[in-house]
Parts: sequence; structure tokens; C-alpha cells
Amino acid sequence: MDNYVRIFDTTLRDGEQSPGATMTSAEKLEVARVLARLGVDVIEAGFPAASPDDLAAVRRIAVEVGQPARVEGMPPKPPIICGLARANKNDIDKAWEAVKHAARPRIHTFLATSEIHMRYKLKMDPEQVIERAAEMVAYARGMCEDVEFSPEDAGRSDPDFLYVVLAEAIKAGATTLNIPDTVGYLTPVEFGALISGIIKHTPGIGNCIVSVHCHDDLGMATANTLAGIQAGARQAEVTVNGIGERAGNTSLEEVVMALQTRRPVYNLTTGIDSTQIMRASKLVSNYTGIVVQPNKAIVGANAFAHEAGIHQDGMLKHQQTYEIMRPETVGVTHSSLVLGKHSGRHAFKSRLTEMGFALSEPELDKAFTRFKDLADKKKVITDADLEALVADEFYQPREVYVLDGLQVACGTLGLPTATVRLRGPDGQEHIRASVGTGPVDAAYKAIDQIISAPNTLQEFVIHAVTEGIDALGEVTVRIEGQNGQHSLDAQKEVQQAKTFGGYGADTDIIVAAVKAYLSAINKLLVAQGVLGEGERPAQVGAVAAS
Amino acid sequence: MDNYVRIFDTTLRDGEQSPGATMTSAEKLEVARVLARLGVDVIEAGFPAASPDDLAAVRRIAVEVGQPARVEGMPPKPPIICGLARANKNDIDKAWEAVKHAARPRIHTFLATSEIHMRYKLKMDPEQVIERAAEMVAYARGMCEDVEFSPEDAGRSDPDFLYVVLAEAIKAGATTLNIPDTVGYLTPVEFGALISGIIKHTPGIGNCIVSVHCHDDLGMATANTLAGIQAGARQAEVTVNGIGERAGNTSLEEVVMALQTRRPVYNLTTGIDSTQIMRASKLVSNYTGIVVQPNKAIVGANAFAHEAGIHQDGMLKHQQTYEIMRPETVGVTHSSLVLGKHSGRHAFKSRLTEMGFALSEPELDKAFTRFKDLADKKKVITDADLEALVADEFYQPREVYVLDGLQVACGTLGLPTATVRLRGPDGQEHIRASVGTGPVDAAYKAIDQIISAPNTLQEFVIHAVTEGIDALGEVTVRIEGQNGQHSLDAQKEVQQAKTFGGYGADTDIIVAAVKAYLSAINKLLVAQGVLGEGERPAQVGAVAAS
Repeated sequence: MDNYVRIFDTTLRDGEQSPGATMTSAEKLEVARVLARLGVDVIEAGFPAASPDDLAAVRRIAVEVGQPARVEGMPPKPPIICGLARANKNDIDKAWEAVKHAARPRIHTFLATSEIHMRYKLKMDPEQVIERAAEMVAYARGMCEDVEFSPEDAGRSDPDFLYVVLAEAIKAGATTLNIPDTVGYLTPVEFGALISGIIKHTPGIGNCIVSVHCHDDLGMATANTLAGIQAGARQAEVTVNGIGERAGNTSLEEVVMALQTRRPVYNLTTGIDSTQIMRASKLVSNYTGIVVQPNKAIVGANAFAHEAGIHQDGMLKHQQTYEIMRPETVGVTHSSLVLGKHSGRHAFKSRLTEMGFALSEPELDKAFTRFKDLADKKKVITDADLEALVADEFYQPREVYVLDGLQVACGTLGLPTATVRLRGPDGQEHIRASVGTGPVDAAYKAIDQIISAPNTLQEFVIHAVTEGIDALGEVTVRIEGQNGQHSLDAQKEVQQAKTFGGYGADTDIIVAAVKAYLSAINKLLVAQGVLGEGERPAQVGAVAAS
Repeated sequence: MDNYVRIFDTTLRDGEQSPGATMTSAEKLEVARVLARLGVDVIEAGFPAASPDDLAAVRRIAVEVGQPARVEGMPPKPPIICGLARANKNDIDKAWEAVKHAARPRIHTFLATSEIHMRYKLKMDPEQVIERAAEMVAYARGMCEDVEFSPEDAGRSDPDFLYVVLAEAIKAGATTLNIPDTVGYLTPVEFGALISGIIKHTPGIGNCIVSVHCHDDLGMATANTLAGIQAGARQAEVTVNGIGERAGNTSLEEVVMALQTRRPVYNLTTGIDSTQIMRASKLVSNYTGIVVQPNKAIVGANAFAHEAGIHQDGMLKHQQTYEIMRPETVGVTHSSLVLGKHSGRHAFKSRLTEMGFALSEPELDKAFTRFKDLADKKKVITDADLEALVADEFYQPREVYVLDGLQVACGTLGLPTATVRLRGPDGQEHIRASVGTGPVDAAYKAIDQIISAPNTLQEFVIHAVTEGIDALGEVTVRIEGQNGQHSLDAQKEVQQAKTFGGYGADTDIIVAAVKAYLSAINKLLVAQGVLGEGERPAQVGAVAAS
């Protein structure tokens, strides 16, 4: 058995299924680029049968990220681009349609094998399940040389039955066999034993890659994944920040850093460039609006925070006393003071390039103007400020409506009132004023009077980007349209309401809040076909090194 | 070996060491009450030698929570109240001084045993470590019958050396032996083997409780803790929400729910009333300002979110298809629509009582007035709104300065300006106006002109309490005073700057932001001795069932 663990990232598929994590096609492409740069082996780019939008997003990733040398700075060998399909011909056809443009396409099909799923969800008996699995793997293999099969809810399936299903899938042409603990139920000992048993008892498995896919419902996804790997699995299915339904999937960063930090124990390698971990974590958090808690392993704000106290007190002593990883290893940089009021365009450009942004000259001009505005207000501009600024300026959906002016009065002494001026797709100015329960409510109501896009605000978070009272405020909102934008959940086979995230940054948090809301509404309008999928192509990203 | 796992909660000690988690004495007492109600066996209430404030906070918990039947609705047997002490007489004296008022006091002393810690931190040789450990355990045992000893960084210590140190500690009178993986380095297999080895090879250990204490640096704290328990440990050291330094400690909720959900595997019980988990999680998150990510196991907002989609689509099928725990088990309630504009005082009081709040009549009047104000602005008042309202009204430090009026103008069209009117401890009104980079900056600068308490804003987070644009906004801020409020870190032996959290809730987020800042500043002023420890006694808490 080789000692290389393939990292199969499903941030864009299983991760995107978490409530509120809906990303636009442009955002997905950007994430795929960052994943490629991170060095993942496989990108599960989505579930193409969910909707035409989902199919288009996967296809776009196959074309733009799944081809060699399409983007400078990318690894020479592009990642495998994978599409999920239920075990039926329509899903498999759609998956193939989406991924076939990649240099290395993969179809991933699945069918539940646990008693409870077969009885209540599939309403099929075990023989039917075996037959369907084999038939659909063969069908997929007829189109695509690389076929992955997952017996859903394997964690609660009868192992003897699993051996049979998997053996049939192998005979039908499956090349990777993924073993999911779909409901996050197993302990590491149990999961390790399950994988060992499968490797030992499944005929023909020696020529396949065994994969593990765990969920964190009992907080053991990482340990389970590693136990599976130690038992012989050579692919780990993970997501950035461990996002995913319920308590989420296994965290990419935890598995990768455990393998790296404890190499003598595991004696295994991955293709991940760990210094890209923090950037990927921040991008996914920004796009999905799913915050990373400060005490999250590897990527939490406090994960390496112990250093400060020690160094401040001049107590260097031995670094490893309380540190098992260097923060630089995962891309945490300590150059907080970067630029200020007097920094020139050249210094600004250099810093952005160092940070991995590649802006065109006109984009750079735009960003530099904003930087100067910010530097007038804020003494010290840190990397975090720059990221927020670039994200606010460029990682935005096509602007259907543009904020042209905002005026707000609030406090305890009167009625919170906001006046909003927007420029619409018709090029006209629209002005409305509204009162509200607070300034944000007032401003959002004024916007709602201009734009008719009924929605429910589901989440609203503001945080300061950096320390200090003059900090840039970053707002993420999540709205759910009331006109029934839905997406099909592959496993539960239910239509789930789509939600749209918006992002804004400004030193005035009310302005940031308005920008974020407008950005979410613009996404909603695009999704409703008001202006088609005309989002800004994401070549600006944190990925393309020019 | 019995099958009862003792839950040793160190939220107030190791948890409070996370950057920014500093709590006031009143907040600590409130958390201790919730922990008692949750059913933890041991509350590690703090590190009394850190400062006189810390000692006083631990003593107060020993008196108020560590005595039987002091608070109605509490378990008949009070929890053990534990104080941490380094292995020296001064620390142990202080710990005893703090905990001796409890019915069941415990002193927890520790000394590092790893090569790297002995050499670089302690500058002691192994023989000196053995001698000191035995001497100090004996010293503690001279005062207190219940003594816990931890060989710090046991995870990286030589097991043979550990057996010797532990055996000496047992001879000297230690009753609980805690094995910490201080830097979160081990895998479950390694940690399980360490615990097995200790139980097998340490003379005299049969009469002691073996305890495990893990950190989540590689994402395996829960799995390591459970592996230690399976190897024979019968005490787990944990924190609510897994807060703690760096990536945090083991999560109480994950360990408890894994033992409960997989009882046939573990065959072990705890004394935890799991239905109190969500309330404890929210309280700790509010007080520390450390957010819980949506995909956090058990207590994350999405941990049970899958239900919605399924139920909405009428696809009940079999509940357990994607669910291994019922949300009710951990105290997630689904009664979102509770009260509205026309709800009377009686309905309001009943709901608060059901939620576990016990307000006095004058407090109830005050809360009811605020409820009516809120109901005028917001159609539907949920449990979350009520919690925010009660927290804003009653979980506040003594108000040195009180907000009396706020007026704000901002937007993209002018200079953000705020006028603040405060009533000071002198009873006088103070009014100042200021411009700023945004409305919050302007208001905070106006406050700074009135109150001279130089500080740095370290964190600023606003989120909407509930769905909908008219939602109540909840603001938490964290400031660090510039006048050198410090607290001693027991393990690293460095003075760490104290930070103060503030909390505010209002439908106007600028008002909420101002309240939160004032609340943090008031805590800072109290800590600086401006008015002594005169915080409001916390009898109002979510704990005392009247």
C-alpha cells in the first residue's frame, strides 16, 4: 500500500449543503481555484442534477480549474473534478455532462446500504440495492474511467452486506470506494475496524482506492478519518473549516496537519501545501458566511494566540514548550503593520501580490483609491484590512443595483431613519427614506421599497476586521428569497430553500450592512433570472499568480 | 471499576484562560450555578493565586454554589469546588483559602513532567520534580482531604517516569490523578495506551480516580478523552463549548453526548442533565464573547438544522434516517413563536419561569416594560429575544456610567457624528459629541471624552438574535485596559493582560454597540478599583428556580 493520502475536498458539495452556505457560481469557481492551489487531489464540485445552475457551476470548474495550465501558478497536474450523482441514469448523465470537460473527470455515485435507509428512504430490499449499485456503476463507467461509489450510511450498515455491495461495484468498474459515516455515529475504534474489515473481506478491493467520509456529530470526525486511514484508506473526504450539514464534515486542515505534525506515527503524506490553509479558510468563511470559532483547531483566531503573551513577556524559553506547530506552517502571518497613509501605489501593489492577489491595472487603480480613502480614516492598514477591501471591491456578484448614497439618523432620542439612493439596472437613480426599529432595519426597508425582491433575513453578523475602534467593519448577511429558489438535496431527496449570502466592508458599519444586503439581493435577483448568470468572472481571485 | 464518569468542568479555569474570555466575578458565579444545575461533579472555579480578584471569585463560588441547598432547584449534593495551584506552598495556601468554604473542597496542584518542560520551564531535574510533587501533594493533603495532582504535559512525558511521579503523589495523599495532554499532541490510540499503562504500572493507583484532560490542537480532544475513559479513566476534564487556550479544551457536550448516544459501546454514565446543555452553552458564549460556530457538534446552530428541510417537505419518513440524537435531549426547543404585543404580564412571567429565570417582582416589572417596548417594534418575540433582553437588563456589571441618550448621524454623504449623554457616578450628566470613521467609532470616541479609561478595542461582534430585519441586535465587545490589569497564567507563569467583555442588545445596533462598550468600560473601571467589586449580585440568574 502506498503512503500517499489523497485529499478529496467536498467543500463545494457536502459543505455547500450546510444551511446558508449557498455560493454563487463565481464564488464556487474562486473556491475551486484556491483548492487547486492548496493542492487537493480531487474537487467534488457539486451535485449537477440538483439544478441547471448547479450543473453549470460544476462545468465551469471543470473547464477553468480542471484543465492543465489554464491558470498560472497552479500545480502542473490539475485536480480531478468530480460530480455527485444518485444511482440513476439521469443523475449520472448530468454529472458526466458537467465534469467531462475536465482533464481528469470523476463521477461519484452513491446508494444507501443501511437497514434503516434501505427500508425508509429507498424502500428497496438488499438484493435490489446490490443490483442497482452494480448497474449504475457500470453505466457511469461506460462514460467515465474514474468512478467512485459510496454505500451511503455505511457506518450503520451490516459489514457483511457492505462487502457484497462493494465487490459488485468493483466488478462493475468502480475505482474508488468511499465509506461514509453519514450520520457521524461511529467511534474511531469502530470506524477503523469497519475499514479493516472492508479491506480484508471485499473481493477485488486491492486494485481500488478506499476512501473515508466522516461527519462530526459526536466531535470525532477527524479521529475517525485518521483511524480509517491507519486501517488502510488512502483517500480522505473533507471540507475546509469542516463545514457541512449539521455538525459538518471532517476538517481538511485538521487531517492534513495531524498527518504532518505526527508524521512519525502515521508515516503518510498528502499533496497539500499547508501554507495555503489560512487563505482557503478565510475565503470559504467569507463566501459562505459560516464563521470559524476562535477555538477551532488550526484555523481559529486563537489557535496560535498563546504566543503573544509569552513573547511579550520576553519569556521565549523553548518554543515547543506549548507549541506543536509553527503558525507559519498553516499560513498565519505576523506582519500586522503593513501599510499606512503614506504608502505608495508600488508598495500597495507589492503587498497585494505577496498576498496572492493579481489585479489588472484598472482594478489596481480602483483598489488603490479605496486604500487611500481607508488610510485617511485608519492609521494602520493590515493584511486583514486589505483582504476585506479587496473582497468588498471585487468578490461581489454582478451589481444589479448599486449603492449611490446613504444617510442615517438614529440613537435613543428619535426614530431611526435612513435615506437610500440606489442606481438601478435601468441606469436611473432611486431614492427612498424609511424609519425602522434601528438604522439597519430602516435602511433595509428603504432598499425593499426600491427593489421588489421579497426575502427573509436569516442571519446578520458584523465584526471588526482588526483591533481598534477605527477598525473596518465586515458584515455578512444571509437572506432567503420568498419566491421559491430551491436546490435538490442529493441524499435526503428534498428541495431545500436556497439562501444567499452578502458581504460588505466599510468603516461605517451601517454602510457595510447596506452593502452586504445589496450584495445578497443582487445575488437573489441574478438567481431569479432578472439578469441571468452575468456575475463578474472571478479572475481577480486570490489564486491566479500573474 | 465503576461505570460512572465524573465530569470535571474547567470552563472557569482553563476555559477562562482563552484570549478574551475574562469574566467578572458575578459572571463566574452565574456560570458556576449553571454548571451545578447541569450536574457536573467538579467545578474548577479558578486559579486563586493569580490575583486577589481570582481568589475572591473562587471563594464566592465555594460559598454560594459549593454548599448544599443554598440555591433552590440545585442538586441536593453540591458539586466539588476545586482551585488550581502550582506546586508551591503559597499557591496551595491561596487555593485552600478560596475553596475551604465549600462542603466538598478540592485542591488541584500540578507540576510538569515532560523533558522539555522540566528543562526549559522548570529548570529542575527529574528527581527534584518527584520530590517537589510529593512534598506539595502532602502539604495540600494536610489541609484538604481531596487532592488532585496533574503531571503537566504528561502526553509528552516518559511513561516510566510518570509511573514513578504518580506513585509518589499517591503515597503523599493524592486522591485523583489527572493526565493532561497539555499541547493536544496525541492520537486516541496513543492516549488510550498512556492511560492503560499508567493504570497498569503505577503502584497504588487502584484507590485513586484517574482523570483525563485533553486539548484540541489537532481536532482530537473528544476522541482522546473517550479513549482515555475506555482505558479506565473515570474523570473527564472538559469545558463548555470546548473553550480554552489555543484550539481549546475537550468539549463537555461532545463527551457527554457521545457517552449517552453510544451507551452500548461505552457502557458508562455521567451525572449530567443533558437538557441543560444548550442553556449552559449560550450563557458561556454570551459571557466570554467566544462564538460557537454553526457547525459545532451538539451546540452549533446547525447541529440539528437538517430537520427543518425534511419536515417542511412533509418527508418525515423515519426520523433516525439522518438523526442520531433528538434536539430536545440537549435542550434545543422549537417553540420559536412565544409572545407578542398583546401578551400580558402573567404570560411573560410564566415564559421566563419556564426558561429558568427567577426574577423578583421589581425586576419583573422592569423586564416587562422592556418587553413591551420591544413588542411595539417587533411583531414576534422569541425565547432568544427574551434571553437577550434579560441578559441586557440584568447580566450587567454595576453601572458606573449609565447611558442616558444617544444621537447618531452617518452614511456615505457626511461625516459620521455621535452625541452621547451619560450619567456618571457623581450623578451628573455628561454630554459630548464626536465625529469618527463610522457611527460606532464616533460614539465610542464621545464616550472616551467623558470617561477616562484608556483601552484598546480588541473584538467587536454584532449579530441578529433572531431572523427578520426587525431583529434585536446583540453586540459583544472586548477591550483591553491600558493601565495594566493583569492576571497570572498558572502554567506559563506569565502575566497576561486582562480583557473585559461587554454585552448590549437593542433593535438599534448602534445603541446596542454603545451599551456593550459602556458595559465593558464599567467592568474595567470596577477592576481598576474605581468603585470596588460592587457588581450586582447574580441571584437573577438563569439558574435559581424560585
